Amino acid sequence: MHAADPFLFQLFFIFVWAKLFGEIFERLRLPAVLGEILAGVVVGPYGAALVVPSDAIYAVAEIGAIFLLFTVGLETQPKELLVVGRTSLYVAMAGIAVPFILGFSYMVLRQHTPHEATFVAAAMVATSVGITARVLGDLHVLKTLPARIILGAAVFDDILGMILLGGVVGLASNTGTQWAQLLVTALEAVGFAVVMLFYAPRVVRRMEPGLERMSTHDAPLIIALAICIGLSYAAAKIGMAAIIGAFFAGLAFAEYSPRWNLRPRVSAINEFLAPFFFFSMGSRLNIAVFQDRKLIVSAIVVSILAIISKMVGCGLPVLRSGWSNALKVGTGMVPRGEVGLIVALVGLQMNLISEQAYALVIFMTAITTLVAPPMLKIVFKEESTTVDTIPEEQHTAV
Amino acid sequence: MHAADPFLFQLFFIFVWAKLFGEIFERLRLPAVLGEILAGVVVGPYGAALVVPSDAIYAVAEIGAIFLLFTVGLETQPKELLVVGRTSLYVAMAGIAVPFILGFSYMVLRQHTPHEATFVAAAMVATSVGITARVLGDLHVLKTLPARIILGAAVFDDILGMILLGGVVGLASNTGTQWAQLLVTALEAVGFAVVMLFYAPRVVRRMEPGLERMSTHDAPLIIALAICIGLSYAAAKIGMAAIIGAFFAGLAFAEYSPRWNLRPRVSAINEFLAPFFFFSMGSRLNIAVFQDRKLIVSAIVVSILAIISKMVGCGLPVLRSGWSNALKVGTGMVPRGEVGLIVALVGLQMNLISEQAYALVIFMTAITTLVAPPMLKIVFKEESTTVDTIPEEQHTAV
Repeated sequence: MHAADPFLFQLFFIFVWAKLFGEIFERLRLPAVLGEILAGVVVGPYGAALVVPSDAIYAVAEIGAIFLLFTVGLETQPKELLVVGRTSLYVAMAGIAVPFILGFSYMVLRQHTPHEATFVAAAMVATSVGITARVLGDLHVLKTLPARIILGAAVFDDILGMILLGGVVGLASNTGTQWAQLLVTALEAVGFAVVMLFYAPRVVRRMEPGLERMSTHDAPLIIALAICIGLSYAAAKIGMAAIIGAFFAGLAFAEYSPRWNLRPRVSAINEFLAPFFFFSMGSRLNIAVFQDRKLIVSAIVVSILAIISKMVGCGLPVLRSGWSNALKVGTGMVPRGEVGLIVALVGLQMNLISEQAYALVIFMTAITTLVAPPMLKIVFKEESTTVDTIPEEQHTAV
Repeated sequence: MHAADPFLFQLFFIFVWAKLFGEIFERLRLPAVLGEILAGVVVGPYGAALVVPSDAIYAVAEIGAIFLLFTVGLETQPKELLVVGRTSLYVAMAGIAVPFILGFSYMVLRQHTPHEATFVAAAMVATSVGITARVLGDLHVLKTLPARIILGAAVFDDILGMILLGGVVGLASNTGTQWAQLLVTALEAVGFAVVMLFYAPRVVRRMEPGLERMSTHDAPLIIALAICIGLSYAAAKIGMAAIIGAFFAGLAFAEYSPRWNLRPRVSAINEFLAPFFFFSMGSRLNIAVFQDRKLIVSAIVVSILAIISKMVGCGLPVLRSGWSNALKVGTGMVPRGEVGLIVALVGLQMNLISEQAYALVIFMTAITTLVAPPMLKIVFKEESTTVDTIPEEQHTAV
């Protein structure tokens, strides 16, 4: 294993640097994920070049992205949607349409290629509700109506975002701009989602007795892992992003996750692998591109568009129940996260977007994530004081 | 992620083939690990060549080996040794010395290089007690004296085996045969083991309050993972095998493992990664070497030596308490496992042992593992019937 020294070296230092930056960010009450990405920017090849990830590390990072989305899927309970119902669906749909249209239009106006515009717009779509949920939990307002709408909308948002990403990647890899092809790709993505949403959980349910008869130690976990990798491969094979398969695999197992104790164990795999993904992501960000002032302007405009478009898109469907609620829901849906970043990374790897556009998306993700918590604290101020007496239990609601 | 298709393809099929063979072996009441290795032999490049592992897969397999030994370390409680005491230590020591000397002598007699003889002999040393523990559990005899001596001896055996491996690898990489160098290497290995055994747990104990104050989500797991990779890197850096570092990292955290709930989560990582390691191991076995009849003879002789030497070495220190107990302890220590296989793999990767010697070790490991369960059932026959009325609790003793 002597030849492997550089691999172990990278494995160790990437993990440590990512977690170190994550810890610093946590202490500053900023999202740890941004810290892990920043570690890649600062220590990686475009920064101090202390650690330059090899192909083996990128392979590990790719498995990391798969487990990241598998975990997101496992935590998404389609059943919970029935509670919050239609409002959440409308919030999610408008919250996807408005940012996508605004983002696409702006990018095309700035003379980017249609492919690049599509990828950046798609990256502006997916809300990452983790940060919102944590802030709302801290404020003890998770049981209020807007909070419940947000959490429900986030589930639809994830699923719709995945379908959109499937369509975008499929379209991009066909390089066709014919309408017929666009239709086929969209249908493929929707079909995949429908099968996975409605058929797959039933398959899992039927597998259950067989699984519990299997001789392999811990068969449910093994089967879940196999299906996760298998669907990732299948998704990539039919021209969508691998992570879409991983996400829907998670969704299929979400119902049985508590019973088979899947979540804590998949999370452990995720906690080991995810830092490599985020670090790699940062290590591909060429900070030199920001020397171009035009790009800085673009980055700021895209970030503002990302914030406003979510607030408007997600706020509008709630307007009937008052301005205050609309503002709360809109603000809660602002932060973008992993999915947007992965969209950008897929685009970069397919050579469909430039280093500049990639930098744009990371900048936008960071801004929306940093800006949301203080905004949430302001708009939820009144509830936070009125319901402050509700017992501690609420903390565990998410 | 399109370029990554072959990687995902391999990831999926290796996992599925390994687990499929593992399941078949389990159903035949054979060890799953042997099935996973066989999958690599049958499906891998020297077999049907359905899946040819790439460098990225070998990198994943290497992390798998590290987590395998980390798990072994986590499950080893040095404290438990005080209960079984000196007898176990003597059993372990004689059980290491006799196979090593016999193995080395035979290999040198058969005109292998000293390096090759050393590696094969070292691979004959480490007992893998997992299979024994399971058979004894099935027979309800885990609380008998010989069973407790076996389980205690297995812990010493692991630690001493690691020190020996450290010495062997260090010696081999120095390529020196001078006695001074041998001494330095041996001291280095012993020193590493002593520091890790006596000093590291204290460091972990002192880290505890700080760890629980950390902002990072699930800090103990993250720190344990970081230290595991870090020590693997350190061990490789000072010229020992990386897995030695991982094993001692596990040992250092063993005491706190229940409290921080480390084991189930590290096991989950292990269950995902280990199949890649075992499959890779099998995929490097060139079955064509067995066309040489001389090698088959060697393999059979080495296997018989491996069985007899453990029975004699481990039985002798127990002889005072009767032939029957000596036979039981000796038989219980026969199965070899992961550590021996890794020794051979390290040798192969360092180009210090031939494909033939590698095949020899895998053959020997398979034979000792297959032969032990039926032998155990015979020698433990009387206890099994006399203590059959003892309550179910015993099952959970290991």
